[in-house]
Amino acid sequence: MSRITFLQDLLTSVFTRDGAEAANEDNRSMQALCDALLSERGEMSGNRIARSLLNRFEHSSDEEKLAFFKMLCERFDIDVQLVKSTATALAENNDIDHYSALFSSVEPRRQELFRRLNRITGATDALVNMRADLLEHLHDHPELERIDLDFQKLFRSWFNRGFLVMREIDWHTPANILEKLIQYEAVHEISSWEALRGRLEPEDRKCFGFFHPAMLDEPLIFVEVALTKKAPDSIREILTGSRDIVSVSDATGAVFYSISNCQRGLAGVSFGNFLIKQVAQELSVQLPNLTSFRTLSPVPGFMRWVNKAATETSAEVDDAEQELLHGRLNVVQRIANGEIEAPNADEQQFLKELAAQYLVKERRSDNQPLDPVARFHLGNGASLARIMPLADVYPKGLKQSASVMVSYLYDLDNVISNHENYATHREVAVSDDVRELLGEKKKRSLRAAN
Amino acid sequence: MSRITFLQDLLTSVFTRDGAEAANEDNRSMQALCDALLSERGEMSGNRIARSLLNRFEHSSDEEKLAFFKMLCERFDIDVQLVKSTATALAENNDIDHYSALFSSVEPRRQELFRRLNRITGATDALVNMRADLLEHLHDHPELERIDLDFQKLFRSWFNRGFLVMREIDWHTPANILEKLIQYEAVHEISSWEALRGRLEPEDRKCFGFFHPAMLDEPLIFVEVALTKKAPDSIREILTGSRDIVSVSDATGAVFYSISNCQRGLAGVSFGNFLIKQVAQELSVQLPNLTSFRTLSPVPGFMRWVNKAATETSAEVDDAEQELLHGRLNVVQRIANGEIEAPNADEQQFLKELAAQYLVKERRSDNQPLDPVARFHLGNGASLARIMPLADVYPKGLKQSASVMVSYLYDLDNVISNHENYATHREVAVSDDVRELLGEKKKRSLRAAN
Amino acid sequence: MSRITFLQDLLTSVFTRDGAEAANEDNRSMQALCDALLSERGEMSGNRIARSLLNRFEHSSDEEKLAFFKMLCERFDIDVQLVKSTATALAENNDIDHYSALFSSVEPRRQELFRRLNRITGATDALVNMRADLLEHLHDHPELERIDLDFQKLFRSWFNRGFLVMREIDWHTPANILEKLIQYEAVHEISSWEALRGRLEPEDRKCFGFFHPAMLDEPLIFVEVALTKKAPDSIREILTGSRDIVSVSDATGAVFYSISNCQRGLAGVSFGNFLIKQVAQELSVQLPNLTSFRTLSPVPGFMRWVNKAATETSAEVDDAEQELLHGRLNVVQRIANGEIEAPNADEQQFLKELAAQYLVKERRSDNQPLDPVARFHLGNGASLARIMPLADVYPKGLKQSASVMVSYLYDLDNVISNHENYATHREVAVSDDVRELLGEKKKRSLRAAN
Amino acid sequence: MSRITFLQDLLTSVFTRDGAEAANEDNRSMQALCDALLSERGEMSGNRIARSLLNRFEHSSDEEKLAFFKMLCERFDIDVQLVKSTATALAENNDIDHYSALFSSVEPRRQELFRRLNRITGATDALVNMRADLLEHLHDHPELERIDLDFQKLFRSWFNRGFLVMREIDWHTPANILEKLIQYEAVHEISSWEALRGRLEPEDRKCFGFFHPAMLDEPLIFVEVALTKKAPDSIREILTGSRDIVSVSDATGAVFYSISNCQRGLAGVSFGNFLIKQVAQELSVQLPNLTSFRTLSPVPGFMRWVNKAATETSAEVDDAEQELLHGRLNVVQRIANGEIEAPNADEQQFLKELAAQYLVKERRSDNQPLDPVARFHLGNGASLARIMPLADVYPKGLKQSASVMVSYLYDLDNVISNHENYATHREVAVSDDVRELLGEKKKRSLRAAN
Repeated sequence: MSRITFLQDLLTSVFTRDGAEAANEDNRSMQALCDALLSERGEMSGNRIARSLLNRFEHSSDEEKLAFFKMLCERFDIDVQLVKSTATALAENNDIDHYSALFSSVEPRRQELFRRLNRITGATDALVNMRADLLEHLHDHPELERIDLDFQKLFRSWFNRGFLVMREIDWHTPANILEKLIQYEAVHEISSWEALRGRLEPEDRKCFGFFHPAMLDEPLIFVEVALTKKAPDSIREILTGSRDIVSVSDATGAVFYSISNCQRGLAGVSFGNFLIKQVAQELSVQLPNLTSFRTLSPVPGFMRWVNKAATETSAEVDDAEQELLHGRLNVVQRIANGEIEAPNADEQQFLKELAAQYLVKERRSDNQPLDPVARFHLGNGASLARIMPLADVYPKGLKQSASVMVSYLYDLDNVISNHENYATHREVAVSDDVRELLGEKKKRSLRAAN
Repeated sequence: MSRITFLQDLLTSVFTRDGAEAANEDNRSMQALCDALLSERGEMSGNRIARSLLNRFEHSSDEEKLAFFKMLCERFDIDVQLVKSTATALAENNDIDHYSALFSSVEPRRQELFRRLNRITGATDALVNMRADLLEHLHDHPELERIDLDFQKLFRSWFNRGFLVMREIDWHTPANILEKLIQYEAVHEISSWEALRGRLEPEDRKCFGFFHPAMLDEPLIFVEVALTKKAPDSIREILTGSRDIVSVSDATGAVFYSISNCQRGLAGVSFGNFLIKQVAQELSVQLPNLTSFRTLSPVPGFMRWVNKAATETSAEVDDAEQELLHGRLNVVQRIANGEIEAPNADEQQFLKELAAQYLVKERRSDNQPLDPVARFHLGNGASLARIMPLADVYPKGLKQSASVMVSYLYDLDNVISNHENYATHREVAVSDDVRELLGEKKKRSLRAAN
Repeated sequence: MSRITFLQDLLTSVFTRDGAEAANEDNRSMQALCDALLSERGEMSGNRIARSLLNRFEHSSDEEKLAFFKMLCERFDIDVQLVKSTATALAENNDIDHYSALFSSVEPRRQELFRRLNRITGATDALVNMRADLLEHLHDHPELERIDLDFQKLFRSWFNRGFLVMREIDWHTPANILEKLIQYEAVHEISSWEALRGRLEPEDRKCFGFFHPAMLDEPLIFVEVALTKKAPDSIREILTGSRDIVSVSDATGAVFYSISNCQRGLAGVSFGNFLIKQVAQELSVQLPNLTSFRTLSPVPGFMRWVNKAATETSAEVDDAEQELLHGRLNVVQRIANGEIEAPNADEQQFLKELAAQYLVKERRSDNQPLDPVARFHLGNGASLARIMPLADVYPKGLKQSASVMVSYLYDLDNVISNHENYATHREVAVSDDVRELLGEKKKRSLRAAN
Repeated sequence: MSRITFLQDLLTSVFTRDGAEAANEDNRSMQALCDALLSERGEMSGNRIARSLLNRFEHSSDEEKLAFFKMLCERFDIDVQLVKSTATALAENNDIDHYSALFSSVEPRRQELFRRLNRITGATDALVNMRADLLEHLHDHPELERIDLDFQKLFRSWFNRGFLVMREIDWHTPANILEKLIQYEAVHEISSWEALRGRLEPEDRKCFGFFHPAMLDEPLIFVEVALTKKAPDSIREILTGSRDIVSVSDATGAVFYSISNCQRGLAGVSFGNFLIKQVAQELSVQLPNLTSFRTLSPVPGFMRWVNKAATETSAEVDDAEQELLHGRLNVVQRIANGEIEAPNADEQQFLKELAAQYLVKERRSDNQPLDPVARFHLGNGASLARIMPLADVYPKGLKQSASVMVSYLYDLDNVISNHENYATHREVAVSDDVRELLGEKKKRSLRAAN
């Protein structure tokens, strides 16, 4: 255990490292600073230049940032003719010298620029933010995607799972970290410090996040968990402050009711799947009584699909069927609009069946489900376990999914085979309940309908 | 300050992460394990596979390791024809899709293999050791250099200066770290725990090292420092246990008398230059009285050069001069052999002048000095300040440098310009003393004679 | 530095120590539990008994607690006849056996009871709270003061300055500690987490507290500090969120504007004086630019004195003078009542002169000043530097001191002599400004008027 | 968990507290320094005085220390006449004022002196060492026991079990702590760092110690544990480096084979009993497979008793019996002297029977066993489980116990009742094996023979 302590000690030094050089800004242009940082001299005097560059970028306007990215794109790109010639030479003579020459030619110099920037304290964070800024410009300036590819490569290496650290977050966590939870919570907003305390302090609430040693104050992703005696039927059961707190020793299930990425600049460098599985493992060790690990998840694309489907007619089905479907879609739209306040049993059944169809049968061109949250959990190896009408009647929930929420089950014995079936055949693992909603009988996974 | 603590806490979790899965080894062949780890399924069940692979490799024989490397080389290499075609296509149409296609084609699959291996605790260390094993085979199997290039790329990214942490090492450091010092000290052997204590406990001794958060128990490099009232004339003054201990408040100079890399597997991923400069900075803050930072360094290639020169005759100099030189070289050889036990003033002068010539004038084909330690410090921006005969009369010192040691000066005001002059013009910064030994007058840097 | 780390590690174990035994409560009466804990058997099975006793006490009603204290008082008191006989015997024969016998006889058994209770985790905190409960009953049950004397003895030993740890509290401090600041702030209320952040996060705000290793989550006392470029004229300057934040490098003064004890149960075990002086020392090391350390303090007893004086007539002064005084007192009363909203220069002068008289001249029977805050700071060796009218126009400030605040100066060169003069002669150190307000000229300390 | 971290952080500050003042020594006499520290002024300027006093004492000669103790004894003692009068007054009028007056009169001023000394960093350690010095003088100067009584009182309060922290010590523990193990090991000497590593690094070896937060670098007591598959028959099985290391998962028993107090100055402030029981608890949680907790203990007084018994004749037993006994005693003496190198079965049986008699039947005047180790473990509630001849054939073992070692069993279900029977009736819990050696049959505890 004490080897940890030595490491702890280690890390105390990182913060005093190079605060000093910040004082003296280098006033050259950003381009000149980049050139300088990549020069021989930059190898030695790099910290001051790097600090200046990162400070300058942080305080730049959107236009200045765009100009900076364009400069990176043009000035520090690869020489495609050179690449062609090294590649051609290698194809002819596949020896180490040609191999090495190829690799020299295919690395844009901005990669080395990023690595040199990263030598100073706080740079990793700054570079992640830089990419977040870059992403803002991609739509209008698709040529900048080249830089984004470089960022992705870099971050996949730096944020390798082996370097991340999972950590429980609770009411004893430093306030500056806790305020990030308030800021980043993307699923169910945290309205105040008291609300935050309600999610962290009770013994039936847990929270875990991933952190990177070079980005101290920034969770990368976090997940909120409720410990329960029975699977909840609605998000209200979880979020209400007036519930009975479940004693940890009585809890049998863990419900992951919110998972939020914190860093836009790490988009595409995913760790969510690692986090959920690691939290499940950690909890099963901490609390051996827990027998089920499931989510309480939104269905963010449901109403978008309903609304679109309501305007379409398909040549493949007959009119009567079509009419029946449109009638059901219309009911769901009225629920989403708040026109039907207390849906009856039939209406709830429509909701469930349509949601099942949406989640399992409706696919993208790559044959994955339309719903992004479904793609995430099914891709992780979870199965679609329950579809719950009236589970989220807050305004946002009504609007996006007509109150429907779903539960994905992480059965640690099956996640690997589920994942594999999904990855190779796009088979979606579902429970018998869901299968019934789809009008199917046999217990097997389902491929897309089309 | 307390944000550090949170991080400290963070890192305590890393060690309990995945010890469990070690128990169940996966008995497939190494190749099958690699394939499995790179498969879709491997994405999910990867930890167990990775653990099995690394365990298996660690306990392999040399032949098995060689076979493994060959397999890596052949099975997971790039497809050079594909690279040629993506490169050619990109040269024709330099858009993002072709750019992206190129990058996909140039990454050998073993890179992803290494990244997936690295997801488990302890893997970074294991991969560094794997490369150390690889280096053993390079001489006889130069085709494996392709893998080495991949390792280098990976490690340059992972061991980016921004992720390293400098830390003072002292008698309060955990024993398992301290024993690494005994094991890795490469310059002046540490013969016992008592000898180690003598280098760490007195207040006029300091030691600093770089560590990586994912390699807890392993210093990457460390430097030993003596605090002194005057520049020492010999290594004995530093290492003797019978010296008077200098009070920290009286010390005016810091002498770096030993710097040792600890990880063969990180050869070529250098941080020595960062370490020395950061230690100098740290010390100048801790102890504002310190006014000089210098080394007490060996001259490891001196006698090799002397012995070679003693057998050569040059067409460029006349016979008399040649005879004179050979006489001097012979004196130095006799000192190195212990035949002259107490060299007189003339003999000492020969030593100094020849050493000056060797260090400053004798160059490799790339115009850098012959001596590797000289290249390191001069390349860092230090200047050659003093040449000391009789400074190391231990057997190893006599044999490799006829007792000569030198002192390189790190003048924080000049390191950048020194470095730049060396990097661009191979100019070597020397003190007036050294210049005089070279028979020169004017105060300027010296380029190579040839 | 790393020896600290070892300790850090040490302390991680303390919390897992004896959670387990809490489960099985011991249902005997409190008195039976006390007897059991003091028995031989209790020596061994004590943890469970101690846990039961402390839990039981915590959940007792006021009456039950009172009964418990009475039981402690009667059952575990000393035997005064025995004490008399051992003391008499010792006076006759002052040898070690009689000395030892005396000490055995004068220790009430409840002392050992407290020590045995303290063997379990969390007990120190519980015992401090127990004394807080005891203090509630002292007024109506003065006989319980015997127990309080025992508590005081115990706590003076346990909370010896050498065992306390000072620590900076900032926005990176765990939330559960920060919420204690909100709860305990006794001088200037903290209304919300945002208000708290305003006192901790800006670089010109500092906060320090004392903690005890056995009471982790509980600050014992904390002091809030503002760094300023000039001495503030009012508390509004400090507390307003709309001020310009002073750069740390520009600050020349530290203003202690709030000091709050957190533990009622530690009343009389003072560490406030240690804290202020240690903070001043710490800050003078951290920020060498700081040249003055002063308070911005309330005058809590001022209006109480004014109101009393306004109803009295003294036989010692003549009528004219009396009338003049009463006129002035009346002005001050009207300011305190809010009847004079913007006092003119004369009125402000009255305020200052009367406050000076109250603070310096008005004394208790022990010749110390009437004002408790004045006693605290003057007793610490501070001097009374400034008296500021209109410095606190918040309702509480108006009511208790007619808006007057004062500044006590901690001049590190003079605190010792000031303290000594105060302690031995009750001389109050004042500035020239204050001396002038008192109608005095010569620069010397002032004794009480009577 | 993270509340720990905050504390960890807390404690980092303690060490920078007051190093500075050490520089300026106060040159007054020790007596003058004591007076000054107890004065009003000392209340403020105490740190410097305290530092001077402790430094001065540490560097004093034995004679100076003795003089200091005598001064403490005379100058800062209680006034026995005053005590008599306050005690008499209290016996007449047992009210709070008289109660309080008594307590003021019975506290020697040196208690306050010690408390004020303890305000500075490192003082606790220094005071513990001061008492160790005092103990050296007690034999020749019994009058100093008065001071020792004061020290004991103080240390029982400061080193209350609730303030101690248990911690595992292993090869990752800082070297400065580890060297204390080498230094303090009292039972089986540790000859080198390699020998130490052999006791800490293998997975079947454990070590735990108690520490106090104010004495960082000093273990108070530590215990060494071997994890085994079967109860060992000799200490060689434990200490040999050539044994097979037992996998932690295979171990079923924990053997406490060495327990050493580290601080002479804490003699009589016992924590050994707490430590063993806490380690047993800790291990039973860490390693649920462990089913037995026993010691492998020396019998330090055995040969002393044998040698004495061999010279005595008892009037109570007849000659034949006497002769028989002396014959046996003589055999044991020859074994201890190494004259019988390989005792046969009969001789071993003599050893065991005599040891059983010595351990169980031979008592001091207080009816406790003669053997100090037996008193310790039996007093803790252990039972005497096995007596092993030839268990320690190292020279020291032969000499002190003719190679006999014994095993005390800590059966967590019985320690409380065993302790109580021992404490109240001096009943010694023994195994059936031992009972048989004593010639008894019935399964019950044994009181002393006399």
